[in-house]
Amino acid sequence: MAETTYRVEGMSCEHCVGAVRGELAGLAGVTEVDVDLASGQVRVVSEAPLDEVDVRAAVDEAGYEVVG
Amino acid sequence: MAETTYRVEGMSCEHCVGAVRGELAGLAGVTEVDVDLASGQVRVVSEAPLDEVDVRAAVDEAGYEVVG
Repeated sequence: MAETTYRVEGMSCEHCVGAVRGELAGLAGVTEVDVDLASGQVRVVSEAPLDEVDVRAAVDEAGYEVVG
Repeated sequence: MAETTYRVEGMSCEHCVGAVRGELAGLAGVTEVDVDLASGQVRVVSEAPLDEVDVRAAVDEAGYEVVG
């Protein structure tokens, strides 16, 4: 199991949170996604380590950006 | 045909706009909904005048509030 925390910029409301969560939850092997709107912290738990390129692409697909 | 403009408070992003638009578009007789995120102005066109109670309820259902 792998767990990584990212910071995502631009989320302004719970709809944004849902969009990011939905895209990340759709990545193969992801079992849990927690998003904190106030801080932009996004915690992703997966069966195996994720390719950061895929994570960034998923967040981009939702309309936001991983900044850290 | 009737056209009324309201001001809706609390919309912070295009997802919010979509939620408000979707609820208002679901009201009977509504033919057009335009939402301006920056100003909060929401223009609703309908076949006949709408009951303001229904408009307020729809916006509330989306999670926002008509303030004017």
